[in-house]
Amino acid sequence: MTTSWFRFEVQATAGKARAGVFHTPHGPLLTPVFAPVGTQATVKALTPAQVRDAGATLVLANTYHLYLRPGADLVAEMGGLHRFMAWEGPILTDSGGFQVFSLGDLRQVDDDGVTFRSHLDGSLHRFTPEVSVRVQEQLGADIIMAFDECPEPYDRAYNERALERTHRWAERSLRAHTRRDQALFGIVQGGVFPDLRERSARFIASLGFPGHAIGGLSVGETKAEMYATVDLVTDILPADKPRYLMGVGTPEDLVEGVARGVDMFDCVLPTRLARHGTAMLRDGRRLNMRNARFARDPRPIDAQCTCYTCRTFSRAYLRHLVVAKEMLAATLLSIHNIHTLTQLTRDMRQAILEGRFEEWAATWRAAQRQTEDEGRAAEDRA
Amino acid sequence: MTTSWFRFEVQATAGKARAGVFHTPHGPLLTPVFAPVGTQATVKALTPAQVRDAGATLVLANTYHLYLRPGADLVAEMGGLHRFMAWEGPILTDSGGFQVFSLGDLRQVDDDGVTFRSHLDGSLHRFTPEVSVRVQEQLGADIIMAFDECPEPYDRAYNERALERTHRWAERSLRAHTRRDQALFGIVQGGVFPDLRERSARFIASLGFPGHAIGGLSVGETKAEMYATVDLVTDILPADKPRYLMGVGTPEDLVEGVARGVDMFDCVLPTRLARHGTAMLRDGRRLNMRNARFARDPRPIDAQCTCYTCRTFSRAYLRHLVVAKEMLAATLLSIHNIHTLTQLTRDMRQAILEGRFEEWAATWRAAQRQTEDEGRAAEDRA
Repeated sequence: MTTSWFRFEVQATAGKARAGVFHTPHGPLLTPVFAPVGTQATVKALTPAQVRDAGATLVLANTYHLYLRPGADLVAEMGGLHRFMAWEGPILTDSGGFQVFSLGDLRQVDDDGVTFRSHLDGSLHRFTPEVSVRVQEQLGADIIMAFDECPEPYDRAYNERALERTHRWAERSLRAHTRRDQALFGIVQGGVFPDLRERSARFIASLGFPGHAIGGLSVGETKAEMYATVDLVTDILPADKPRYLMGVGTPEDLVEGVARGVDMFDCVLPTRLARHGTAMLRDGRRLNMRNARFARDPRPIDAQCTCYTCRTFSRAYLRHLVVAKEMLAATLLSIHNIHTLTQLTRDMRQAILEGRFEEWAATWRAAQRQTEDEGRAAEDRA
Repeated sequence: MTTSWFRFEVQATAGKARAGVFHTPHGPLLTPVFAPVGTQATVKALTPAQVRDAGATLVLANTYHLYLRPGADLVAEMGGLHRFMAWEGPILTDSGGFQVFSLGDLRQVDDDGVTFRSHLDGSLHRFTPEVSVRVQEQLGADIIMAFDECPEPYDRAYNERALERTHRWAERSLRAHTRRDQALFGIVQGGVFPDLRERSARFIASLGFPGHAIGGLSVGETKAEMYATVDLVTDILPADKPRYLMGVGTPEDLVEGVARGVDMFDCVLPTRLARHGTAMLRDGRRLNMRNARFARDPRPIDAQCTCYTCRTFSRAYLRHLVVAKEMLAATLLSIHNIHTLTQLTRDMRQAILEGRFEEWAATWRAAQRQTEDEGRAAEDRA
């Protein structure tokens, strides 16, 4: 059994898009796949049963947060993250790098690692590639990430320096990693600079990781820059390993990512929007459920959607819950939003398997343009 | 079919305790029964599927809150409360009286009704028995309540005045009620005064309601006074109608209530305690899950409990969720606490049906005394 873990089978392709299976110790992961985020070992407002019923097959948890609270040693003692949070499918942990670098003044980077203060109590900590990998081994996710630096995307000089560090840290992460039942992914950085991205993709690909991630996107660059970068990087990364576009999760980004050869995505967007009372539609539109026009609307959020929320509740009820600040609003909208994104990846997978992805994508893009035009027209009328 | 609605069958008795079936338009209600509270048309932090899986068969919703937001006309337009909140079983609404009287300075009572200001926006409203019944007819619950006044339990003069009003309002509620698919219950008041309680029980029982409630308890009086009042009132209320002890929901109160002939209970306690991180045990103990002693405790809250939370999660995980202020803590503890109370009523029902309730109650009380003694001993050691 062990030998087949982390084997990635590409079952069908359509242009650069791929449908595949990534074998993990917690079952096969069908790709393309979208993973909701369970920062503190819980996808906010949902039980694991609800996460699964919403269509998720992979969840992400954040190493930085779990390292600070409840502590990776505690999670290990409780049997690891799967048992602790009762998620039976595959789990992915990030390296903690992104969160640590997001701390701004609370952190200081050197070539060996990063010293930072906890956002919880100000206590002093230090992450190095070795610490990040050890913590991720304690957490016990199926897929873990090399420790990397995620710089501001437009600062050329900083990106060059950071890239060198990220590459050294990738090598050190690989050397530090001991668990055979975890796949350690390398991360390509380089901001918006094509030559840096190309250099990074070639270097990271040369190290023999069982999977590769594209980091440092969806952090302020334009859509055109994001898609061009993805295109460039996926041309270089080996085809027989899964490709993971980190932190990305709008419907448009999923479609354009898959079309450019991405297999995995994660994002807080569906659950964060849900907590703010916003429903995502598969064509990219968003409904602010607080809006008075939903007060007496007996329809579901999306008549085509098969999620528990759409099968069971009216927009009027959801609007009531949002206005009344009821926790159930976050739960029901999270279910719907996660279902929207996971179903979108399932539909793309099916279209790729059936050899009709280009057609599917063209139809999706046309529908999206139309709703965008209608949206502008509606705004003009308002 | 219509003719069998609201028939109450007593299936077995044990002393004053009864096991019964109350037939409603949304199915038979097996008694004794405990109803969790869905104040704003949602049992906080739970989907209806989770409420049902936690063992609830009846839920309560609050007329005052729903009248103000989203409005009873809106709920009626959306198909009524069952459809609006997607609860397929029986629903009970209170009259709004208790909430309105809890407003203190924001309300003014006269013999005809109560004028009050909304706690939401200060707008002026008026409830009379006729308004309360009309609003409850719009909401469409299976069981609705007569409009009553719930005074401070120790003020004799006020209780005498309030009781007269409550009795007039009971008659007016009955006259105002038109829906054949709803059972209107009368409410016995009278504070802690046996003669007033007796007068009230005799009068309310004489009006021919299909069920009777005992109001104005669990509002500051002693346990001894509560149980004595229940005992006195259930001796008077007719045996062929269900008896509902309003706002009561500790394990001890359920056991002592059932032993004194009560069939129905409701309380916010299990969900409110859950939101504060507290787990209820069936012997009456409470666990503050924030406590550091649970940090590395791999056991479920209660090894005997069969709820989703206890089947799936450790105390360590629940403690982590509470400390990290994750919404899932409220969800999982609400599931456990509701299950604890509904299972307790189920166990009592089974014991009554099998002719061993007195034994069961003696065992329960002995276990409770023992844990109380242990609790005191533990406090002594601490």
